[in-house]
Amino acid sequence: MESSLDKLININEKFKKIDKFWSPRVIEQMNNYQFKLAKFKGEFTWHNHKETDEVFIVIDGKMNIEFRDKVVSLEAGELFVVAKGIEHKPYAENECNVMIIEPAGTVNTGEELSDLTAASDEWI
Amino acid sequence: MESSLDKLININEKFKKIDKFWSPRVIEQMNNYQFKLAKFKGEFTWHNHKETDEVFIVIDGKMNIEFRDKVVSLEAGELFVVAKGIEHKPYAENECNVMIIEPAGTVNTGEELSDLTAASDEWI
Repeated sequence: MESSLDKLININEKFKKIDKFWSPRVIEQMNNYQFKLAKFKGEFTWHNHKETDEVFIVIDGKMNIEFRDKVVSLEAGELFVVAKGIEHKPYAENECNVMIIEPAGTVNTGEELSDLTAASDEWI
Repeated sequence: MESSLDKLININEKFKKIDKFWSPRVIEQMNNYQFKLAKFKGEFTWHNHKETDEVFIVIDGKMNIEFRDKVVSLEAGELFVVAKGIEHKPYAENECNVMIIEPAGTVNTGEELSDLTAASDEWI
């Protein structure tokens, strides 16, 4: 694990280093929680995180989170917490820059391993 | 404690509800961590948080964090983690909107209680 503690992080500069959709990259850690950036485009997969809530903050663009009973639409400057254990599927019609906050080691697809499963601790 | 889990939070709309400097207000919680918004202007007090790191993300404006050996300057879109136990003093020449992420119950002035000490769990 890398640590960049004590470094000033420019969020938009970090987004320029991301060249793949749906692959969260860690930019910083506080205690055992990580701040990750991801670019979303298209549809992700249904999954949940049994052990933790998960925070989405949209930095640029628009995205949706589909739940079994509703859809939540977020745009830049909006924050939403998906409670632990709740099945959800993010999707974005156009490219969307998102910050995710969750415990270190959280896997993007939960227990639903697939081609979309990304390394959970890759720093940029 | 109030919980607004499962609500879409518009960060800038929440800032409009803040009418006092240096008084962080909780907008959301994930697990036992809280997202707080604060308006900074002028000088805060030297303090530290012995039990936790603390995250600052500048949403609008500019602020500084003075340490015993340096000053870190942040502007909108920048993130900085103050490591636990490290003495620091935030200040801002002009009004600055800041998001703070830290465990629920964290007191803004650490153990240095003063007129600047704010309620640690006031939601907006």
